[in-house]
Amino acid sequence: MLTTPLAVALGDPAGIGPEIVARAWTKRDELDLPPFFAVGDIRSLEAVWDGPVERVASPSEASSMFPRALPLIVVDDAGEIRPGEPNLEGARCSLDSLEVATGLTRSGAAAALVTGPVSKAQLYAIGFTHPGQTEFVAERCGIAPENVVMMLAGPDLRVVPVTTHMPLREVADRVSVELIVAKARTTARELSRKFAIPNPRLAFAGFNPHAGEDGALGREELDLIAPAIAVLRDEGIDAIGPLAADTMFHTRARQRYDAAICLYHDQALIPLKTLYFDEGVNMTLGLPIVRTAPDHGTAFDIAGRGIANPGAIVAAIRLAALAALRRRQAESEPS
Amino acid sequence: MLTTPLAVALGDPAGIGPEIVARAWTKRDELDLPPFFAVGDIRSLEAVWDGPVERVASPSEASSMFPRALPLIVVDDAGEIRPGEPNLEGARCSLDSLEVATGLTRSGAAAALVTGPVSKAQLYAIGFTHPGQTEFVAERCGIAPENVVMMLAGPDLRVVPVTTHMPLREVADRVSVELIVAKARTTARELSRKFAIPNPRLAFAGFNPHAGEDGALGREELDLIAPAIAVLRDEGIDAIGPLAADTMFHTRARQRYDAAICLYHDQALIPLKTLYFDEGVNMTLGLPIVRTAPDHGTAFDIAGRGIANPGAIVAAIRLAALAALRRRQAESEPS
Repeated sequence: MLTTPLAVALGDPAGIGPEIVARAWTKRDELDLPPFFAVGDIRSLEAVWDGPVERVASPSEASSMFPRALPLIVVDDAGEIRPGEPNLEGARCSLDSLEVATGLTRSGAAAALVTGPVSKAQLYAIGFTHPGQTEFVAERCGIAPENVVMMLAGPDLRVVPVTTHMPLREVADRVSVELIVAKARTTARELSRKFAIPNPRLAFAGFNPHAGEDGALGREELDLIAPAIAVLRDEGIDAIGPLAADTMFHTRARQRYDAAICLYHDQALIPLKTLYFDEGVNMTLGLPIVRTAPDHGTAFDIAGRGIANPGAIVAAIRLAALAALRRRQAESEPS
Repeated sequence: MLTTPLAVALGDPAGIGPEIVARAWTKRDELDLPPFFAVGDIRSLEAVWDGPVERVASPSEASSMFPRALPLIVVDDAGEIRPGEPNLEGARCSLDSLEVATGLTRSGAAAALVTGPVSKAQLYAIGFTHPGQTEFVAERCGIAPENVVMMLAGPDLRVVPVTTHMPLREVADRVSVELIVAKARTTARELSRKFAIPNPRLAFAGFNPHAGEDGALGREELDLIAPAIAVLRDEGIDAIGPLAADTMFHTRARQRYDAAICLYHDQALIPLKTLYFDEGVNMTLGLPIVRTAPDHGTAFDIAGRGIANPGAIVAAIRLAALAALRRRQAESEPS
């Protein structure tokens, strides 16, 4: 059991973050959710929800409060709040909330960090210089952004894109054996630490059709992926592949590995979102803290209408709690 | 009702083709399958099945035979047949079977052509010069291979890869606006003719992450896909996109279109095979005949063991029958 609460940053006050966090709280008993507190502007909750919210001064008050009200650590000054209509004050509030929630998790006052969706466009407009929340959190944890790994998780599929937001035609030239090895190594270590999988099985997707057919349909398998697999195997990591990407994600195939390592964004995200669109979780591996996020955006177009699906934030909260618990157990075991 | 039988080429005699066709026949009542006849070596069936097989001299005898035995048009000389152990005589037999089945369909004696899995490696070894069965059938129909379209279909998803077996890094340079338009136009026309969809809705997948984010993550959407969509719309075709490829294949998203047009192999095949691994059908569009195939290979590793799943060949037979029927209805309607 996790007694330390989780910190949940509400994200952009005009997005669906506040309402999905509130709806997750209303399902706390039904879904047996761990205690968490929200971080953000109280008015962003009040604008979309008439349930009980209680301000707390510190996370230590949150767990006892949790059964009867959504505990909130207040970050003020979100300016005018209108669901679906983002503005720069809201972006500043979302950044402050992220900063506070990250700090509380770093300090150990919160067991894990869950981040609601923010608007990158709005954040860039206020001078935010990181590509996204992940890099911001990494820096606050003293980790270089290139040393963290983005993993997307659904109920029975975990995928790791080695590259994320870059043009597809540049991927093959920008990936190196070293990069693949580094991402896979972090994934394996974190699956042990935070998922209690002693010997994680990693499956590598081929880059070309049919995994290149021994070079006939491309050389990235021979030049990049197979060499990376060889290095990892030498280190004792259970690595298979390169596999034909189209036949490695169906139900039976998914039983063969604990995480699929993919070279590019869509190769990882297509299977995950095709199967688990409403419950995908983004988890950052390689940090000294546990951090998860729902794998969706602010959805300004539906914010405030009461129709946003809380499935992904619920999944993000649950996965964060489980990972925090397992990490603690791993650390308390004699080694 | 279709009274003309379908021609089903058994594929490589040492692969799973013969046994899945036989198993499909045993399910003819349960699944209400249309009458079909097999084309191949009788010994390839006898090696894996002890059910009734009856030689027929022509397709016209097949439909009345179908309820009590699997009708077979014999193509002899497959040499020594051992399931799981392909040889060159078997490859020749698979090619002869394909030739005969194609000819019978071209002549109208068979209502549609269903092709079992062949071994490309074995075919190449006997001098086969086409990339695959699709191109062979296209040539026999007098159609240039570049003018046919491969469509993969599952119960509620149809995908068309604009390119198929080429290195991923070459795709962006080898695709043109004209190629996309040509493939999409054929798809739309065939969805009308063979699927009875009067105004097919085509959804175009972006090439880059998030469909390129207006050029920030790649220009193929701006330079290739959007211009192709504009041309198609001018022709009155219902075309949407470019859509972010990762969020266009989940259950709700699939309701928005009748076929997804994808630029590369895995983008089309990953969602299809992730969802429908055991029932994917490959259909060739743009031919004067209806041709389908199960979307899997010879599976030599499991041939003859009685465990091969007939789901895809059953789906291929059903889809071929439906398409043949709808095409006939379309042709008999006053226009």
